[in-house]
Formats: sequence, C-alpha cells, structure tokens
Amino acid sequence: MRVLYHFPLCPFSRVARLALAEKKLEFSLIVEKPWQEREEFIRLNPAAELPVLIEPDEIILADVSAITEYLEEVYQGDMILLYPGSAKNRAEIRRILQWINRKFYEEVTLRIVWEKYFKPNYGKGHPDPKVLRLGSTYLGYHLKYFSWILETRNWIGGNYFSVADLALAAHLSCIDFLGGMPWEAYPLIKNWYACIKSRPSFRPLLMDRVSGLAPSIHYMDLDF
Amino acid sequence: MRVLYHFPLCPFSRVARLALAEKKLEFSLIVEKPWQEREEFIRLNPAAELPVLIEPDEIILADVSAITEYLEEVYQGDMILLYPGSAKNRAEIRRILQWINRKFYEEVTLRIVWEKYFKPNYGKGHPDPKVLRLGSTYLGYHLKYFSWILETRNWIGGNYFSVADLALAAHLSCIDFLGGMPWEAYPLIKNWYACIKSRPSFRPLLMDRVSGLAPSIHYMDLDF
Repeated sequence: MRVLYHFPLCPFSRVARLALAEKKLEFSLIVEKPWQEREEFIRLNPAAELPVLIEPDEIILADVSAITEYLEEVYQGDMILLYPGSAKNRAEIRRILQWINRKFYEEVTLRIVWEKYFKPNYGKGHPDPKVLRLGSTYLGYHLKYFSWILETRNWIGGNYFSVADLALAAHLSCIDFLGGMPWEAYPLIKNWYACIKSRPSFRPLLMDRVSGLAPSIHYMDLDF
Repeated sequence: MRVLYHFPLCPFSRVARLALAEKKLEFSLIVEKPWQEREEFIRLNPAAELPVLIEPDEIILADVSAITEYLEEVYQGDMILLYPGSAKNRAEIRRILQWINRKFYEEVTLRIVWEKYFKPNYGKGHPDPKVLRLGSTYLGYHLKYFSWILETRNWIGGNYFSVADLALAAHLSCIDFLGGMPWEAYPLIKNWYACIKSRPSFRPLLMDRVSGLAPSIHYMDLDF
C-alpha cells in the first residue's frame, strides 16, 4: 500500500495529497510532526521535511517537486497530467511551482501559519502581530501577481490545469483554514479557487481538523 | 544568441552556467544585480531572482530547476544528461537538487556569502561573526551528510553524474571563493570536487572576479 507522511496544515503535504488524488492513486496517510525529528522519520528523509511518499514497491520519495515529477513520469496513460503541454509550458509550470513553494512559502505561508497555528499550539508563545501583518502584506503582493496571471491565461501555470494550480490552492487553503484570506478583494483568485475547491481531489483537505483550532467558517463552504 | 542573466557569486546562476556548458550550448553572459530591481529585469522575472535564460527563439526561462529541466527536455541527442537514469534515479536527483538549492542555500550559502561578500561590498555593514559561525557549523553538518552519500555511491545524485553534482559544486565554489571551505576535514568531498573542478564546464567559473575581493589562494588551483 502507498503511504504518505504528512501534516494537515503543511502546504507541501497538501500538494502531494492533491497530486495523488488527481492521478486517482490510492494512498493512506500517516500524520508526522517533522519538528520532533523522530528517528524513523529522519531515516526516511534526512532533511526532516514533509511530505515523504512510500510507493507500493517500497521506493521512498521525498520533496514535493521530486514526488510530483515522479508521479507524472510513472503514472501516465489516461490519467490527468500534472506538467502538461510543451517543454516551454512545463518550464512555466515549474517556475510558478518553485515561486509558490519557496517565495510564497517564505514570505506568506510560513509567517501566517507559523504565527497563527504552530506558535500558540506548540508552546512557542503568542502570535507576533508584526510578523502576521508582514505576512498579510506580502499575501496581497502575491495575490495581485496571480490575479494578473489569471487575467492573461486560464490557469496559474498556463492555459492548462497543472500542479501549479494544486500548489497555490494548497498554500491558500492553509491560510483560509486560519481565516486569513481576503477573498472579496481578489475576485479572479476567488473564482479560480472555487473551481479547484469543488474538485473531488480537494474534498479530503476540507475535512482536515487539527487539535486546538476550528477552521474558519467558510473553509468547507464550496459557495463561499 | 542565447543570453544568461547572472551574477558571479550567485550559486543558482553558476548551476545554470555549468548546465549550459555541460550541454555544450553557447551563451553570452549579462551581469545582473537583482537587488537593484531594474525594471527591465523585473519584466523578465517578476520574482527578481537569478538566473534568467533567454533562449535563441526568445523563450524566457526563470528559476534554476525550470531552466535545467528545460535544457534536459529540449537538448538530448548525444549530449550529456542532467537528470539521467530511471524515474527513481531522477526522483533522487531532484530531491538532492532541492535540498541544495533550498536547505543548503538557506543554512549555509546565504549566511556565508551574504556576510562575507555582499554586506561589506554593498554598504550593508560589517560581517556578523555570529551568522558566519552558524553558517560554518551548518556547512559541517551538510558536508558530513554528503560525505556519507559519497561513501554509498559514485556521485551526489546517485551512480550517475547529474545536475545534483553541478548544484553542490556551484554552492561550494562560492564558499571556496571566499576561503570558507574546510577541504582537509572532508577528503571524499575534496576528491569529488577536484573531479568536477577539472571539467571544462567549470573553467569559466574559476576565472570569475568580483569587485572588492580577490578569490582565496587555492580557488583556481586544480590540485588544491
């Protein structure tokens, strides 16, 4: 059986869950708290990071880019493509994917999710309003950029649905869980997210619960 | 003509330069200081990051993963492979590539290169010895891990030479330029680096000079 080590509010784990579900591959989930640096987990991924995927043939995959590229190479046929189109299209998808998983993560997701969720729930102190404000300010810059992207093409990575859509939706869903998304100010992003949110692959994410915190009232609502 | 926007001590630019040279593709270089956020450059890459590659057919490529994957897809034939082997091999190369370009960069390269080079040379103050010490401590952790890797296989990404070797060599070469590499304590890394350093693709990097600083005495020496 395929197993994914994940944590509910980890955006990278969410990308892997969405990619597996879009490929219609069955998998079971193991919740991992990577900051505990559990010995067995470090043996799977010495970087002590999520997600880690164990394939049915025991191949161990770590890192969200490596995992999604692997799924794309190995599971083709009539399955959905995560990196569709020409080499040029794929280069654009990868540029955006790296942007989201590195730049957006550092400037936005990390600040908001760490301060709002991890700090208070794991005894690291109270959320710092300055960091949260900075996260929200940068969230605005990025949403403006992605709104401009959606004015020029159908999807985040180009004219095809791709892993870039899954990645942005995964990060935004973590922020939305914590009530930090200014949906009304970004109608193009809101419409795009509503499309992604109604995909069957997204449903399990909407059922996620974490200890110590209820999701924002519209988190599960498909008509938010 | 193919053009690469780069900066001499930017490790990501160096990966792209090495990848292009390994593929035996001709290119010219334009030095860019991305922190100046030049309007024309931001139009090429709104992330304001290096490297950016303009292909002969005007395709604009940004991000080092996107660039190297694109070169691999488009330039095959009898050229060297940057992501060789099976899907499993490639997943391992990508895991290591992300490790180097994200984890190693944040924990080591950024600390050492920023403090030793960018701060004093761009009026940002004196190097902070605490940050430098932290960078060197983490450098040790990573070199231990990569030494262990080289005990178990021929190259950094597996049993084939790959873009993972180019990436680690690119980062280490920036640190070596600044005299921060404890070569004698890591003989396996030293031997591996000596192999990479003697490749024709590496020669232009060894000729790099930056204003305000001479490279360490053994930086160019193939028999260091």
